[in-house]
Amino acid sequence: MSQSAPQSPPLKEIPPKSADLSAWYTAVTLKAELISYSPVRGCVVLRPYGFGMWENLQKHLDQRFKATGHENAYFPLLIPESLLVKEAEHVEGFAPEVAWVTHGGAERLAERLAIRPTSEAMIGTMYAQWIESYRDLPVLINQWVNVVRWEKATRPFLRTMEFLWQEGHTAHASAREAREETLRMLDVYREFAENVAAVPVYAGAKSASERFPGAVETFSIEALMPDGKALQSATSHDLGQNFAKAYDITFADADGQIKHAYTTSWGMSWRMLGAVIMTHGDDRGLRIPPKLAPVEAVFVPIVKGERRDTVAKAHELADGLRAAGLRVRVDDRDQSPGWKFTEWEMRGVPLRVEIGPKDVEAGAAVVVRRDMRKGEDGSRTVVAFDRLEGAIRELLEAVQASLYRQARAFLESHTLRARDRETFVGYCTSRAGMIDIPWCGRDECEARVKGQTGATTRNTRALEEPPGTHCVACGEPAKVSAYFAQSY
Amino acid sequence: MSQSAPQSPPLKEIPPKSADLSAWYTAVTLKAELISYSPVRGCVVLRPYGFGMWENLQKHLDQRFKATGHENAYFPLLIPESLLVKEAEHVEGFAPEVAWVTHGGAERLAERLAIRPTSEAMIGTMYAQWIESYRDLPVLINQWVNVVRWEKATRPFLRTMEFLWQEGHTAHASAREAREETLRMLDVYREFAENVAAVPVYAGAKSASERFPGAVETFSIEALMPDGKALQSATSHDLGQNFAKAYDITFADADGQIKHAYTTSWGMSWRMLGAVIMTHGDDRGLRIPPKLAPVEAVFVPIVKGERRDTVAKAHELADGLRAAGLRVRVDDRDQSPGWKFTEWEMRGVPLRVEIGPKDVEAGAAVVVRRDMRKGEDGSRTVVAFDRLEGAIRELLEAVQASLYRQARAFLESHTLRARDRETFVGYCTSRAGMIDIPWCGRDECEARVKGQTGATTRNTRALEEPPGTHCVACGEPAKVSAYFAQSY
Repeated sequence: MSQSAPQSPPLKEIPPKSADLSAWYTAVTLKAELISYSPVRGCVVLRPYGFGMWENLQKHLDQRFKATGHENAYFPLLIPESLLVKEAEHVEGFAPEVAWVTHGGAERLAERLAIRPTSEAMIGTMYAQWIESYRDLPVLINQWVNVVRWEKATRPFLRTMEFLWQEGHTAHASAREAREETLRMLDVYREFAENVAAVPVYAGAKSASERFPGAVETFSIEALMPDGKALQSATSHDLGQNFAKAYDITFADADGQIKHAYTTSWGMSWRMLGAVIMTHGDDRGLRIPPKLAPVEAVFVPIVKGERRDTVAKAHELADGLRAAGLRVRVDDRDQSPGWKFTEWEMRGVPLRVEIGPKDVEAGAAVVVRRDMRKGEDGSRTVVAFDRLEGAIRELLEAVQASLYRQARAFLESHTLRARDRETFVGYCTSRAGMIDIPWCGRDECEARVKGQTGATTRNTRALEEPPGTHCVACGEPAKVSAYFAQSY
Repeated sequence: MSQSAPQSPPLKEIPPKSADLSAWYTAVTLKAELISYSPVRGCVVLRPYGFGMWENLQKHLDQRFKATGHENAYFPLLIPESLLVKEAEHVEGFAPEVAWVTHGGAERLAERLAIRPTSEAMIGTMYAQWIESYRDLPVLINQWVNVVRWEKATRPFLRTMEFLWQEGHTAHASAREAREETLRMLDVYREFAENVAAVPVYAGAKSASERFPGAVETFSIEALMPDGKALQSATSHDLGQNFAKAYDITFADADGQIKHAYTTSWGMSWRMLGAVIMTHGDDRGLRIPPKLAPVEAVFVPIVKGERRDTVAKAHELADGLRAAGLRVRVDDRDQSPGWKFTEWEMRGVPLRVEIGPKDVEAGAAVVVRRDMRKGEDGSRTVVAFDRLEGAIRELLEAVQASLYRQARAFLESHTLRARDRETFVGYCTSRAGMIDIPWCGRDECEARVKGQTGATTRNTRALEEPPGTHCVACGEPAKVSAYFAQSY
């Protein structure tokens, strides 16, 4: 709907990303209308534009869960305290972060109810009821839900009291199957991060100190942000029989014996969107990978004087693309084209389609890529109206690939092998990126590095050095190869 | 995965629906694995099969929301008490049902936080921040979320402490637009109920006593259950300026004046699934309308002796249908065909595809419709393998239409015009169905009927009688036509 505008609203200016990532991040999440702060400390509103990114994330990830045999379900929000405390490490890890319901209406509850910080306790209790025989295994369930963890600090997407996530919970007849599931889902996350979010990651095992409370082994994918800090973007836990024993998940095996099941859990939250924002954005604002973009292409018709045929043409073309399944929008507000260009660049729409009066006559539009610098070769393409759909699909693929390529190049150029302690400490202190060392794997060594430099292990993998190699941090025998970094 | 079975598990028997709707309902929701009771009083788990119905409901309804210009978002779960109390009628209506969070970790909160019973308070607060000018209107947002209302009684889907729903919240520049939106969404619900859930409904206005707390006018769709009780299946509220005034949602209009906006809200919950279950089920169990069915067709290969080629053929055909977008499953467990037939009939799968050794040789399968009686003409169709997809699509459409037709016939035959008080009271007391009378619209009259018979107004519409008609319940002048019924 167009109206005559008395004056342009002020441009939503953001500080340059290159000068101050943190200030840029906060400004862009608000001004691009991804989120708003809410009246509840620590909670944000995910606005339609931000939710559009989340919906696309859900769609792509959910397809992958279903393709690997999982089904969705919904488990209750509230967990009785007596259930939460059954797994000792688990409650110790989460109790400080729990929001407690103590009253229903005017009634004081006999037992407090925790708002789920995660659902192992509730789901384990139900699996104990559902599983009787080895024939009932594996159970492969996921849920897309809100969780609450009482956090003091708030950073949109990265750390909020309430957040949206998915949590997968599975039960298996053997340790081997549970470990296979844990690694399968880790790989689903890695592949999703790289191919959908265009965020390259390192996948590996967390150190003992960074394990999920109650897990036998935790695996993660770790991305590297432009400030040299790592961002843990998803985790996958092999819970062994710990939760099965705490919640009494048993089954009659084929040999007639009653055995405890082996369980796993794995989750990705809206934190992934924080990784996307920081990884791809530039001084002009967001650059959203096409597969996650709520709007893949925005039409900006150029109105000159009384001639509004460009607006009609933009709507006609956009309608056609929408019918073909593309996510497009027409900006026909009464603002200057320059104002709109700046706005949609800030909001990170992958492609802009400009249509001026001469373009209508020539039967062609100009498509501009958000991922490239202004004036860069190939950043502007003239496309005939009748081949717009094909050209836009190709350009979207090109933008998706180029964002990944740029992010991959950054990760690789900021992954640093340190082979002596001085270099290692220097890298850690200067927040140089992902620092790759042979590591002893000992808690004490990790704690000392953290105390001295602030860096922690991000994840580890099989030792990629000859036997006899020593830990770069402490000189003891190396057991694994590890990435250290400062982190969010 | 097939295993040799020492013995068949017992059949999951349910009492006949015709004898006792309530016992049948509880049994079928549990035994069909739609839900499980959870360890939290009043909360149920929506199991994968039940969640599959919810996912299909979401898909179809969300498409309709988007086609009418709405976007999804996510607002915080927790609402500070000071916000909730701003609209006086609203807090009065909901306060007795609120679950209160009083502690975060070990910290006692300065202000209690309500778990949302509905989100007008939170969303109104945000709209007040977002809306500045008439150019920002309308705001058309929906969210798919969990809500909590402290209820003592629990009936799966119909009444639970926590439930899943969607809540749309919109803001407009004029009363006319807000009313149009309210009625537009009411019609979306009606059309969805009829065309997707196959549940015919009456749409109309609620009486004053049944209005949403704080609304100017509430509209509903009402379905009729087999026991003659009505089930309110969705509501749409015209909130006028009540919430805009309470939460200070103002805008600068085109004339330069600062005005309060007009808002609406509308919701459908998983209660709709309760309507689907009760409406369509029969003595053998569920009959799920194809558009909501998690499994549209189940293959039951008949294994005779060592011949397992029927299993391979079933998987081959099912894979093809799945690739074509149909939701199919193969039951290759080592149970007898009869056992499987009973199980999948109870779980309400619309079509069963039987493949025996002779069928493999003949290149054809037998497709059996769940909506028809055993032995009824047309209930079994022999279909050549190479035209299975088309035949299944046609049969699914036929099942969808037939379930709606049956439900429509029931509603029509149980909609009773009463034109004298004695007949009216008799219908009300005997729970005869939807009782249609010219009504005065007065609270006192409604309260008296309720006190005497238990029946309430379900909804009303413009008077369909000549002027001068009197209220059948009390004899005062009639103002509207109304449906009375006992209700869930």
